[in-house]
Parts: sequence; structure tokens; C-alpha cells
Amino acid sequence: MIALDWGTTSLRGWLLGDGGTVLDRHAAASGIMAVTDGNFDAAYRTFTAGWRAAQPALPALASGMIGSRQGWVEAPYVACPAGLADLAGRGVMAGEAEAALRIVPGLSWRAPDGMTDVMRGEESQIIGALDDGGGDGLFVLPGTHSKWARVEGGRIVGFATYMTGELFAVLRGHSILGRMMPADGAMAHDSRTFAAGVADGLDHGHDLPRRLFGVRTRGLFGDLGEPAAPSFLSGLLIGAELAGARASGQIGAGATAATLIGETTLCTRYAEALAMAGIAARIADADVTPRGLWRLACAAGMIDT
Amino acid sequence: MIALDWGTTSLRGWLLGDGGTVLDRHAAASGIMAVTDGNFDAAYRTFTAGWRAAQPALPALASGMIGSRQGWVEAPYVACPAGLADLAGRGVMAGEAEAALRIVPGLSWRAPDGMTDVMRGEESQIIGALDDGGGDGLFVLPGTHSKWARVEGGRIVGFATYMTGELFAVLRGHSILGRMMPADGAMAHDSRTFAAGVADGLDHGHDLPRRLFGVRTRGLFGDLGEPAAPSFLSGLLIGAELAGARASGQIGAGATAATLIGETTLCTRYAEALAMAGIAARIADADVTPRGLWRLACAAGMIDT
Repeated sequence: MIALDWGTTSLRGWLLGDGGTVLDRHAAASGIMAVTDGNFDAAYRTFTAGWRAAQPALPALASGMIGSRQGWVEAPYVACPAGLADLAGRGVMAGEAEAALRIVPGLSWRAPDGMTDVMRGEESQIIGALDDGGGDGLFVLPGTHSKWARVEGGRIVGFATYMTGELFAVLRGHSILGRMMPADGAMAHDSRTFAAGVADGLDHGHDLPRRLFGVRTRGLFGDLGEPAAPSFLSGLLIGAELAGARASGQIGAGATAATLIGETTLCTRYAEALAMAGIAARIADADVTPRGLWRLACAAGMIDT
Repeated sequence: MIALDWGTTSLRGWLLGDGGTVLDRHAAASGIMAVTDGNFDAAYRTFTAGWRAAQPALPALASGMIGSRQGWVEAPYVACPAGLADLAGRGVMAGEAEAALRIVPGLSWRAPDGMTDVMRGEESQIIGALDDGGGDGLFVLPGTHSKWARVEGGRIVGFATYMTGELFAVLRGHSILGRMMPADGAMAHDSRTFAAGVADGLDHGHDLPRRLFGVRTRGLFGDLGEPAAPSFLSGLLIGAELAGARASGQIGAGATAATLIGETTLCTRYAEALAMAGIAARIADADVTPRGLWRLACAAGMIDT
């Protein structure tokens, strides 16, 4: 089968063989924002041409923003709690019969505090991580918009989104804090300073707009050098995310473990921060996305098993 | 005398007569960042030429970033607690004898939680507001970097800075939240939506990176229209500032009143938000800056009274 993670800015694909084995992989900057003419059919045919030339009838399943209102065909959100069967059964078809693509729906959740939240793509990663030895528990997907999901009985029962990565990017790129940092985007990670930032966020995350100004005053008083400043800001924001997740119940009272899903360097940072909050984190295998899509395809009856 | 508020982006000046009466006022975009050649002497002579032509020996006092390391002459921070006499006695001289300018120092404070904070310019406004009927108590100066100062026995005993205004600007200008808002900077204020944002911030400000993403999901689910979105974000950030100020002790347990200093529209918004937090706010007279500089000049012996 063909498995696609079709997001806002990028498109990643895998050719999967028996048992979900990855036979080939391919990536392009063809996220839905890059398909400016809205011709997703052409983008899909181009991206999968090589794989489909050899086997035209390959089943194909995609997750991510391709199923949003701005994507190819909208796959309405499925409300939590939801698991493998719920997601597999609510796929939506796109494209012509000879080049059809099934799209996994996203998830929505209305939290007890009244806030509604959404995800698209992460649900398939979590399904893949569950298969990867992760059972019930807490799943954290760091990134531009970090997701915290709780899984019980194999179903995602609730989740929350934190704008942490985007806060870092806009503050570094456009605020007074960015002016005390090296111009280059490729920053050197300073573990000690990062840990100091995490501690600040864990202890004082409830006062974040003030602690952010504290990054600047630390610089003014020589307590924080320019090269290390991004590490402190990163730690502060991640620490504040953890403190908020704990205060609002994303981290349950007795939680001592979590599974991290995502880019390895960022997951390693989150693992360090979670350890400071008393949570032991394991980082999921990098191929949770194709594995989740394989499981969803099997559950949807797309694969003869 | 000549009184100047010489900040990062702007320069405001007043010609003051007997008793501190404002005889004339003048403003220019000659903030310290605009004096790119570092020739503050020339900028000062140009700005005050009209006033000094008539009376060459006028005493002159300035507050603000002109006394910072990036300014004309650095006026080292005075540590809190500090009042009129401390500030008046620690002025620093700049310029030639025939066109001399005295610069008021800024204030620094190391909070009990270890965080160091600074202000430059706001101390003179608070001194002016104290004269304006404001006694001891809580002073809030909203803006790009909001200041919260506590005054006891006429001295500023501690203060904290919140990056609220800058957070609003960078999120509106550069984040995904800005994309769900009208393009034009001149936003229409929506009181009800602003109040809903304040309530969200007061109740959930400890979980700010998540509540920020909630602004987006409210838009996705049609709970928040594009024209009202900036009002919600503004309310959320101000509410989170208030919640943080309360949690970290800037708002004392028994506090029921505060004095607001600053631009009238913004002060009105803060007064609405403070009322929701049980704090009755009075907005200080617009001319607290020249009044504070007059009082400081008198205390420094610059004026024959």
C-alpha cells in the first residue's frame, strides 16, 4: 500500500509491503499550502507516479491536513474517545477510481473546561506508537503545536494542544528577545541553560508573560549570554507547557511515564524536561506514521490480510 | 524647565513654568534608536532649540532609555526600595555646559523569587502620579512591556514587568492566530469578546500556551469571528497577566484598588479587566510624566522654589 502523511508544509510517503514493512520512502515540499491551484489530484499522481507505475491498483491512505477544509476532501473530525476502529471506519475517499486516496479523519475533543481541541495526523502517529509497544498512557507530540493525548483501553480519550513551538519561533524571530540571540537559526544547544529555563518554566509557568521579560533582564545583567539565550527561552517555554499540562490535568496526578513521538532532537529535549517534572519518557520509533497508517488500512479492510 | 521623556522610539518634551505648569509641549520620532549616528547632543539641541533660544539657561531633566547603555550617558539603575529623593540624587549629567541635560536613573529590583527586573521612565511617571492624588498602593503601567509597581511610604518597593503588549503584537503579526484576524492594524474593539478573553485568561492563564491555541480552535468552530478575534486575544493576554500578577504576589492578597498610568484607551481596557479581577482602578492624569520630572527637578535642587 501507499501511506501518506500530507501536512500543511510537507508531504511524506511510504511504500509498504507485507506486514507493513517499509519498502521505499519519499518526501516533497508539496504540503497543502504549496498546492496553490488546489489540484490535489495532480499533486497526488505526481508524488506517487513511480510506485503506481509498477502496481496501479495499490491501496492508498493519507492522514494530516489533506483532510481539512483547506485540503482535498474534508474528512470531518471524529469526537473523542476514539480508537483504531472509529478512525478506520470514518475515512473519506478522494480522487478518481484509478488513482483513489482514502483520507483518515482528524479528532476533536471538548475538554471538561469547555475548550474544544483538534488534531489531524497525530492520531495516526499515536495509533502507530500503540502498536510499537506503547500501551495506555500519556503521549506527547512536541512541535509547532505540541499535542498531549491520553490513551485508555487503546482509545484516545482526550488531548490538548500547546502553541509552544510557534511561541518560540515568533519570539525568537520578531520580539525583543530575538535581538539578544545569535542571528543564525542554527543554534547551539546549551544543556545547563536549557535546564535552568525548564526549571524557571516549571516553577513559574503560571506567570509566563513576566518570565519571558525575565529572559531579557537575565541578558541585561550578564546572567545569560547571547549564544545560550535560545536554549533558555526554549527551556522556559517547554517548562511552562509542562507546568500548564500538570495544572490543567493533561498530566494525571499519578503519571510517571510518557511516550514521545516526533523529531528525535526535539523529543530528547522534551525527555530531559519531563524527567525534571518526574516523568520518565520513552521516545517512539521514527516510523510510527507508516505503522499507524498500515494498522488503519488493515482495520478499514483496505488490505487482504 | 525643560522636561523630556526620551524613549526607544519617541521623544516627548514639555516646557514647564512656575509650579510645573505645562507652557508648551512637543514630540518627535527621535527615540534613541532613531539617533543612528549616536549624536545625542545634536538631537537634543535640535529638539529644544525653540525653547532654549528664548531662555538659554533653562534647566533640563530627562527620563527613559536615554539613560541606558544604548543612550547618551548611562545612568546606573537605583535599587528598590527607592523614592523621590533617591532618584533625584542619582541623576547623571550629559552634554556641554551651555546645553546640559540631567538624566534620571532607572530602577532595578531583585524579586524574592530571584528574578531581577528593570524600568526606565516609568519611575518618573509613578512619581508624578503620586503627586496627582495617588498615595501608596499598586500602580499598573500597561504597554509593550507592562509594569506593576508597589508603592509604600511614597517609595517604590518592588515591581514586575510583563511582556503582554509585545506578545500581542508578535502573535497578531507573525503567528497562525494573526491569520484569523483582519489584516488591518486598526481593530474594532468588541467589549463582550474582550471580556470573554479576560475571563479565559483569569481562569486559565496558568496554561497560556494551550489557551492561545484555543483562540484558533474557537475560530475553527465558529465561536469566534475574524473581526472579534483580536479583542479575544487581547483579553486573554491581559487576563493571563492579571492571573500571573496575582499568583506571583504583584497583586497583594487584600488589594482592591490600583492606579493605571498610560495611554487612555489601553488603560480603559485594563480597568475593565481589573474590575473583573475585583480591583477598582483609577486612571491617572495624562500629564504624570512632566509632573514627575518637575518634582524630581525640585528635589534635585535644579529649580529655585
